[in-house]
Amino acid sequence: MPVMRWLVPILLLSLAGPLWAEQTVSTKVLDNGLEIVVIEDHRAPVAVNMVWYRAGSADEPPGVSGIAHFTEHLLFKGTESLEAGEFSRTVARNGGSDNAFTSFDYTGYFQRVAADRVELMMQMEADRMVNLRLTEGDILTERGVIIEERNQRTENDPAALMREQMRAALFLNHSYGLPIIGWRHEMEQLDMNDVMSFYRTNYAPNNAIVIVAGDVNPDTVFDMAERHFGTIPANPDIGSRDRPQEPPHNAARRMEYSDVRVAQPYLIRSYLAPERDSGDQREAAALFLLSEILGGSQTSVLSEALQFESQTAVYAGTGYSATSLDDTTFSLIAVPSRDVTLEDIEDQMDKVVQDFMDAGDIDDDQLTRLKRQIRASQIYAQDNVQSVANRYGRALTSGLTVKDVQAWPDILQSITEEEIFAAAERVFNKDRSVTAYLTRHNATSEEVSQ
Amino acid sequence: MPVMRWLVPILLLSLAGPLWAEQTVSTKVLDNGLEIVVIEDHRAPVAVNMVWYRAGSADEPPGVSGIAHFTEHLLFKGTESLEAGEFSRTVARNGGSDNAFTSFDYTGYFQRVAADRVELMMQMEADRMVNLRLTEGDILTERGVIIEERNQRTENDPAALMREQMRAALFLNHSYGLPIIGWRHEMEQLDMNDVMSFYRTNYAPNNAIVIVAGDVNPDTVFDMAERHFGTIPANPDIGSRDRPQEPPHNAARRMEYSDVRVAQPYLIRSYLAPERDSGDQREAAALFLLSEILGGSQTSVLSEALQFESQTAVYAGTGYSATSLDDTTFSLIAVPSRDVTLEDIEDQMDKVVQDFMDAGDIDDDQLTRLKRQIRASQIYAQDNVQSVANRYGRALTSGLTVKDVQAWPDILQSITEEEIFAAAERVFNKDRSVTAYLTRHNATSEEVSQ
Repeated sequence: MPVMRWLVPILLLSLAGPLWAEQTVSTKVLDNGLEIVVIEDHRAPVAVNMVWYRAGSADEPPGVSGIAHFTEHLLFKGTESLEAGEFSRTVARNGGSDNAFTSFDYTGYFQRVAADRVELMMQMEADRMVNLRLTEGDILTERGVIIEERNQRTENDPAALMREQMRAALFLNHSYGLPIIGWRHEMEQLDMNDVMSFYRTNYAPNNAIVIVAGDVNPDTVFDMAERHFGTIPANPDIGSRDRPQEPPHNAARRMEYSDVRVAQPYLIRSYLAPERDSGDQREAAALFLLSEILGGSQTSVLSEALQFESQTAVYAGTGYSATSLDDTTFSLIAVPSRDVTLEDIEDQMDKVVQDFMDAGDIDDDQLTRLKRQIRASQIYAQDNVQSVANRYGRALTSGLTVKDVQAWPDILQSITEEEIFAAAERVFNKDRSVTAYLTRHNATSEEVSQ
Repeated sequence: MPVMRWLVPILLLSLAGPLWAEQTVSTKVLDNGLEIVVIEDHRAPVAVNMVWYRAGSADEPPGVSGIAHFTEHLLFKGTESLEAGEFSRTVARNGGSDNAFTSFDYTGYFQRVAADRVELMMQMEADRMVNLRLTEGDILTERGVIIEERNQRTENDPAALMREQMRAALFLNHSYGLPIIGWRHEMEQLDMNDVMSFYRTNYAPNNAIVIVAGDVNPDTVFDMAERHFGTIPANPDIGSRDRPQEPPHNAARRMEYSDVRVAQPYLIRSYLAPERDSGDQREAAALFLLSEILGGSQTSVLSEALQFESQTAVYAGTGYSATSLDDTTFSLIAVPSRDVTLEDIEDQMDKVVQDFMDAGDIDDDQLTRLKRQIRASQIYAQDNVQSVANRYGRALTSGLTVKDVQAWPDILQSITEEEIFAAAERVFNKDRSVTAYLTRHNATSEEVSQ
């Protein structure tokens, strides 16, 4: 296993030269506020057409959790000119595929098609931006679908249930504490009025970003967008996304979620952490590197110590979501080896992190290697034009600009050891954290009666 | 000390006969939806005039926590016909006193005056229900006042800070998780627009209850109310108070709040618990009795075991807020004796409760004595007409009716041992709880750097 560690860096040496080029990115804003981003990639005659809305689950009004995701589902129903399901059938008949996704900060729709079908896609996207027509039957059917989705993704997965309770306990004020899919009891009550209210409040050209990536010409795309979206009036009521922010966190929280279905106990500690801000991405970049150093691979600090040296963990890692409109999370995860308790692995994990902080030193070569790996993975990522489009979409719906996206790789390269430790000092404050244990519920314990 | 225990029950024996009478309560609803409750008490020529709004901190929109309380403060500023401060000066000039209060489910205003001044009070209350006129200076000044109030009540009190973090971690979805006073960072941003929006949304006759208690005649009060409030139109936008409800809780939470200012460490465990519902008060009544049995006095189960037998606690008690619009809390509190750790006292507390549950038995005499004490304290409470008025006000703004208030004492008397244990079984589920430790921060510990 240790031998493997050297493989990736060696491969990377060959990438030092200019073997690749950033795709050309062109942008335009229509008079009605619609932003358009065109990413050219002429290697194949295909394109992805996307519409991103600055509206995710964290933009939902109280009491209707899941409405952003529900609305996403319902956008595949009918409009004034298309029957329910006709959107996707049309994409398929034209040889393409389509889908959509909802997160805390955005909802996105996309089609992968031959480049000459992009205009048809835009026409249909512009149509469903404002002309959605739903029946009560659509609501009932699709509500059943999203509830079933919750069953599969959350209710049937103890770890998902734990993470849901954990986020709710971590965020004291912000709607990031609520699940994207929604609380079941609220999902069951979602109705036509909730959907149309969310749709009318959030679906408008001045709350959307069209991203077209692939074998397209920017000016042609801008003209198409003008033709199809340009006639839709801006919604003057779309305001800034002033979501409730977190108060000071001053009490470390712990929780245990116990379930008979747990095959493998583990622990997560999640800290509230800063996110990338426009023009101010260095601290997030430092945390991104910290996450890689501590837990990003089999050679990272936590894996080395817990998986290989003490062999007390079968997995140890980190998680950091840098791209977020508001405060995000930095997490440590440890899955103990058989016969190691969660308490023990937690102590060991804390000690490894503390030793790392106390030493205050990252080997120069290690940091250089890591940065090279990051650069390499960014280069490889460029090959997938849809992942490039996703990167822009996530950033632009999370308070960042095209310039921020383009600056990010170089900022990562310029981060110093001092910045990494400074960011670590700020984020590793247990008062701003939840530590959660996922444990197997013992059916013979006294808790059964509860 | 044990001798004292018998004193109260013996005193109570003399109360078995009909030495007291419930005050006469008369009610009316005006065409605009204003409810009026008159509680007659002719022992002295005084009265309390109250206006209760079905609007508390839990009815605030997201991001403006504290707006209900801020609005309460600002109602003492001017109206179209009264200058700022003139309301209270007028009350004082008429020999009365006035004040107001805000809670999760209500905001209330009251004046204690000679009975012949009630009409003047009503006239002024009707005026400020709809005619509030604020200046930017009012907003700035009073915002400073509420922030200073937060400093005194919360920021300077580690226990208050801990309870605030604890509620935020207990309630996963409901706005009961936010502090009534507000999060400081949101209070600092409250502006004229926030206040006027909250005021216009919530201050209306169809969202209010006028309670007049004292030496008054119901028909006279109804006529006065009709004259002063009857001309104010109902606000058709006032809807039902559908606040976000809690999802299933399935992970026990723990937290530690550590502060150099803590003189006495202690622990609280708060469970999510059912509240009194209209026409359905038995479970809440059972929990009310449970709270009394476990921790309501020096002779209760927890005090006996921890304060007197093991002497490991200097205080052990319970807390249960039965009157609440939505799910409420049932809490266990223990303050350890010197040299007893919080972990130890928690284990002992849990064992005492578990032993109580396992025994499944409450001494008949003990339950009878307790019920007699409750009846007695209810009788004594009748002597204070303002506390009677408060009882109705809290109930009517928390989803209960006059009938529910009047049924409550007899329901409490009729609760069986079986009901108490059944309610205890349901509420003592750690998955639906937060356990919080308040500890003294050791300034020499490694945490200082955080």
